[in-house]
Amino acid sequence: MTYEMAKVSVSIPQGTRDFGSEVIRKRDYIFSTIRNVFELYGFEPLETPAMENLETLMGKYGEEGDKLIFKILNNGLDNPDKEKQVKADLEKLLQGKTVKGITERALKYDLTIPFARYVAMNHHQLVFPFKRYQVQPVWRAERPQKGRYREFYQCDADVVGSHSLLNETELATMYKAVFEKLNIPVEIKINSRKFLTSLSKRCGESVRITDFTIAIDKMEKIGLEKVKEELSQKGLNKEQVSIIEKYLLISGNNQEKIIQIKEVLGNDEECQKGIADIEFVLNHLTPNISIVTPGEAEGLPPATSIVTPSAAEGLQLTLDPSLARGLNYYTGIIFEVKAKGVQMGSIGGGGRYDDLTGLFGVPNIPGVGISFGVDRIYDVMEELNLFPMHVQVGTQVLFFNLGDQESRKAFEWLQQLRQKGIRSELYHEFAKFEKQFKYAEKKKIPWIIIIGDKELKENTCTVKNLAFGGQQTIPAGELINFPF
Amino acid sequence: MTYEMAKVSVSIPQGTRDFGSEVIRKRDYIFSTIRNVFELYGFEPLETPAMENLETLMGKYGEEGDKLIFKILNNGLDNPDKEKQVKADLEKLLQGKTVKGITERALKYDLTIPFARYVAMNHHQLVFPFKRYQVQPVWRAERPQKGRYREFYQCDADVVGSHSLLNETELATMYKAVFEKLNIPVEIKINSRKFLTSLSKRCGESVRITDFTIAIDKMEKIGLEKVKEELSQKGLNKEQVSIIEKYLLISGNNQEKIIQIKEVLGNDEECQKGIADIEFVLNHLTPNISIVTPGEAEGLPPATSIVTPSAAEGLQLTLDPSLARGLNYYTGIIFEVKAKGVQMGSIGGGGRYDDLTGLFGVPNIPGVGISFGVDRIYDVMEELNLFPMHVQVGTQVLFFNLGDQESRKAFEWLQQLRQKGIRSELYHEFAKFEKQFKYAEKKKIPWIIIIGDKELKENTCTVKNLAFGGQQTIPAGELINFPF
Repeated sequence: MTYEMAKVSVSIPQGTRDFGSEVIRKRDYIFSTIRNVFELYGFEPLETPAMENLETLMGKYGEEGDKLIFKILNNGLDNPDKEKQVKADLEKLLQGKTVKGITERALKYDLTIPFARYVAMNHHQLVFPFKRYQVQPVWRAERPQKGRYREFYQCDADVVGSHSLLNETELATMYKAVFEKLNIPVEIKINSRKFLTSLSKRCGESVRITDFTIAIDKMEKIGLEKVKEELSQKGLNKEQVSIIEKYLLISGNNQEKIIQIKEVLGNDEECQKGIADIEFVLNHLTPNISIVTPGEAEGLPPATSIVTPSAAEGLQLTLDPSLARGLNYYTGIIFEVKAKGVQMGSIGGGGRYDDLTGLFGVPNIPGVGISFGVDRIYDVMEELNLFPMHVQVGTQVLFFNLGDQESRKAFEWLQQLRQKGIRSELYHEFAKFEKQFKYAEKKKIPWIIIIGDKELKENTCTVKNLAFGGQQTIPAGELINFPF
Repeated sequence: MTYEMAKVSVSIPQGTRDFGSEVIRKRDYIFSTIRNVFELYGFEPLETPAMENLETLMGKYGEEGDKLIFKILNNGLDNPDKEKQVKADLEKLLQGKTVKGITERALKYDLTIPFARYVAMNHHQLVFPFKRYQVQPVWRAERPQKGRYREFYQCDADVVGSHSLLNETELATMYKAVFEKLNIPVEIKINSRKFLTSLSKRCGESVRITDFTIAIDKMEKIGLEKVKEELSQKGLNKEQVSIIEKYLLISGNNQEKIIQIKEVLGNDEECQKGIADIEFVLNHLTPNISIVTPGEAEGLPPATSIVTPSAAEGLQLTLDPSLARGLNYYTGIIFEVKAKGVQMGSIGGGGRYDDLTGLFGVPNIPGVGISFGVDRIYDVMEELNLFPMHVQVGTQVLFFNLGDQESRKAFEWLQQLRQKGIRSELYHEFAKFEKQFKYAEKKKIPWIIIIGDKELKENTCTVKNLAFGGQQTIPAGELINFPF
């Protein structure tokens, strides 16, 4: 018998996703790895509501950004009783840009502005430096396309209320710790916005930093010649382009680059500050006392070493003068993380900013933060096949249901395995072997336990591994110690 | 020097909350306890988007519910370029109830309808029985008041695609497992909607089940006399009220209640089915073989027992004929959980329903589910002081910063403690002792480590416990094994 189905079309909004168990388990592995590192470094969780007052968000992301904010219709607007009021409000909407009356709330567009709003609202109670992390979804009315979603997670850690460069040092170490735990080989780039300020001065009064940051950010992607073209198109003259070219051609190891930066920028005050900042961080990541033994110099392990191992050790930061981090509001050290061996944009970035909460009437709260590009990290891990097997297993053991008496016995053992922390199920009803096997297979359950007529009589059970095919019958009493 | 602050008022939308670290840690303790039990029982996580198509949600929660759904303004509606289109759409809005054109998306109002939508969309790929859990926020435009929020978490587990009562048995056991782990003493009530159907038949054709479910649900709260008044007001005659009264007066232990239910309801087919369902669950929770020794009968522990201990053992369900679960769509067994020793509504509830996805064109998918009232569970745990101490500690160790050389040494040890999994921080800059103490106190950090001039020379460090006041100086090499 077939049904005449009601023609109900079911769908979800464009650009949004349902997450099934497989994706959630993998994504949560990334989240919990990052969260654990945040906690290990003394950062505290914060969660802000999905919706903010519209005025909190509007005007913070540029004109384009404003348009991409999802606004929430005021409650009662679709209520016929309120027609008059609605009509009046709509008139206002059509007269100008103000949308108050129609909408007063919106979905958050990023985590930074709600964080700034939170700090501004609570700065009297907070303990500074305030180290918070936040892992939450945000919403943007972008045109949906491959890899771009209207709802996606952001994952940020910031320290506010401190000028100390120890924070930058810690944040760089956190990047290393996270990607090491996830097993992703990365290059962590560092630069100072102060070099870019110095560079703009060097080019002459007419050139603002925003005139070239976007162009030089593309250095790696489009190459030097195209960057020079873009700079000329922006109105920079030959001499100015030539200064920037010299700056972009800086190369070598970090020490060599610092020497060249001084040369190209003329070592003005901004440049000196930038170098001091970078050196503080780099030096802090080099252990105090380092004895290079002859063996080590030849690439052999050191015979003796009094250097203590630490998470920070082995952390290589690459000074990259071309790193600019686009139009962001950064003022000091900036970071960017790239995965090695995959074609993928940055999977992390951040930096220091001068003033988080000025927009909300609370000036002079500087900060520094990093974020993790969770969707991209997920893709990198898929591509490099880095998700550990155990992350992908839900139920570990399925008890077959082979009748009333059999399933009652299985139910008892089931509870015992769970008490031991083994994720187990009993098939919901008596059914053919084949059907129960299929259930286990589809759910990717690695172990099945059969308690049939024979096992019931002998007080045993048969344990079978679906991946390797092995099978053995054991006394029921030994089940609890079986190495699942 | 004081600032003339810009008068910027900052606030969050009415009825929403920021969650700081203390609340998040406690709430996550509840979430992870529940999630662990869900996983242990073979349930799989699901996450659906915050927004759904408006037509997915409208008409599913009654007229009142429809009004409380937060609708999202179509993108571009506040764009003056689209004036004409907007005007036309608004006309439509004002002519009738249709809001399409203005809004096509809305924030989810509960987890059940999005789950039904997901199952309807994916039923060809899913493995049935499909056991899913979902822990996500939902949004309702309720009038804000104490304890009622416009954004709050729901926490559901459902099995769909199975008629087996093993599911009800498992879900009851899961309630026990969760509340046992959270240390909350609870009463888990069970009933069958089939008794209520039978009761409505017993009262005569004119009385529908919805005529009395809301009234009898209030039995515990307002007492029998008030319930009877309400029933009379609803139009039930004396005889009908008298039948319901007899039903509500059923008392005793579960077995005694079952006998009385048969008497009052006349043991019709619905009643028999209800009893069979209830007995299946109750019997399954009683171990197969139970030998009552003389000692046990006298309240002493049994001398010998071949009963195997399990999570299900000791699970007492209270059959409560007055339990109705309001206007919900339940058709079979229903559950409700109350915390003992606190004045609080139910902290959990659920039951069996016939048809999850019929509304979305996919008929014949029955299911059974339970949910946890997370906000209330939180309040109960606060009231009974049940949150373990370790849940409330963020950073465990603060290294004081007593100068450049000192802090570099501290930075090294800091990294080592973190490698051992100890959540540690180094104070961000050199500062007076008092200031650093204050930071530790405010952040409730239990341990501080001092590496000053003297410690640096002697290669030691001084460890101090802020809660108990103890202090000792130890060789730096021993720090890594210190029992924080």
